[in-house]
Amino acid sequence: MTEAAMAETARTELKRIPERGHFDRPTVYSIIDEAMICHVGIVDADGRPVVIPTFHARDGDDLLLHGSAASRLLRTARNSEVCVTITLIDSLVLARSAFHHSANYRSVVIFGVPEQITDDDEAGAALDVLVEALVPGRGTEVRPNTRNEIRATTVLRLAINEASAKIRNGPPVDDEEDMDASVWAGLLPIKTSFGPPVTADDMRLDLPPSDSAVNYRRPS
Amino acid sequence: MTEAAMAETARTELKRIPERGHFDRPTVYSIIDEAMICHVGIVDADGRPVVIPTFHARDGDDLLLHGSAASRLLRTARNSEVCVTITLIDSLVLARSAFHHSANYRSVVIFGVPEQITDDDEAGAALDVLVEALVPGRGTEVRPNTRNEIRATTVLRLAINEASAKIRNGPPVDDEEDMDASVWAGLLPIKTSFGPPVTADDMRLDLPPSDSAVNYRRPS
Repeated sequence: MTEAAMAETARTELKRIPERGHFDRPTVYSIIDEAMICHVGIVDADGRPVVIPTFHARDGDDLLLHGSAASRLLRTARNSEVCVTITLIDSLVLARSAFHHSANYRSVVIFGVPEQITDDDEAGAALDVLVEALVPGRGTEVRPNTRNEIRATTVLRLAINEASAKIRNGPPVDDEEDMDASVWAGLLPIKTSFGPPVTADDMRLDLPPSDSAVNYRRPS
Repeated sequence: MTEAAMAETARTELKRIPERGHFDRPTVYSIIDEAMICHVGIVDADGRPVVIPTFHARDGDDLLLHGSAASRLLRTARNSEVCVTITLIDSLVLARSAFHHSANYRSVVIFGVPEQITDDDEAGAALDVLVEALVPGRGTEVRPNTRNEIRATTVLRLAINEASAKIRNGPPVDDEEDMDASVWAGLLPIKTSFGPPVTADDMRLDLPPSDSAVNYRRPS
């Protein structure tokens, strides 16, 4: 990891509530790593926005994205400006007034121009990083990708340079005139859980669920 | 709800795996309603994509979005092309090969040009719909919004016309040559749970958590 914080730009600066902005890499990277999916924004040939959900992985100071080599959207994203947004919602914030309802969340935006990884070995290694990010430990349970599988996949690499995190983490904040109202206020935590594993019906061998599934957890 | 299915357009057509596409309103609306947040893609003044996470609500055949009246992004989205993408991940799909790993998911994309709701009464009603979508039942527990609160909020309405859902729901699909491999395959379900409620430290009255928090659930 590059130790220097990322520079604020006009795009990543938080104009309205600047105290929610974070530009240090450990904060940004922990959100990227915990999240399973991101939303990638591109501009189509007619100048209109398109947003697609996809898996991602972080490889050092780069974000990796992948998809079928036949994917139109990945072809558009390659060598074009994208905005990758990653969002984790930690709790709902129930205030004493409807107006102050909110959420505690952690989000990241990354702006930049992804490059396609064209070298087979490098693309193969990137796909291994992507599987490891999705299901930690799974890479040791399955065979390596074949060259044809690697070539059937488009892998993009986006340098994490113009990026920032935005975090709200705290109790409801109400107006003084509502503080004596007879209304409960607080947080409603949101948790994501995984499992138990469901074995495929077409298994030919009688195998227990693999460690990667039984012990699944997101980095945090 | 309008009963007619939505027309496929060049933007909502699924070129690669068309059987995952759904254009009927009940399917699209159930995904919109179950999800708490969406990702809104816009094109900035320099022609570059920006994607922001935000709460949404469905009001009949319209999608409602809101934010501070000071929000740059809402000002940009108003009267401009947006793409709103909503994603639910139901399970991870662990195949016998890394290549066939996937997820079961339900996603929706909506393309269109949102309009700002400028009438105070209509904006107030829309904010009520937004609070109800976020925390069902909460609207009856808190006081109504004041006119100043309504005016401090920008509410956008986007007709759900050019929209589609994309759904994968099934077991791992592996290549025949991997079917005898000694690798467990199956699904890892992902669940989102809510609570228990955490009462705010600055409560002045000794009130139990409100029904909307205790009984919280998403529509499904």
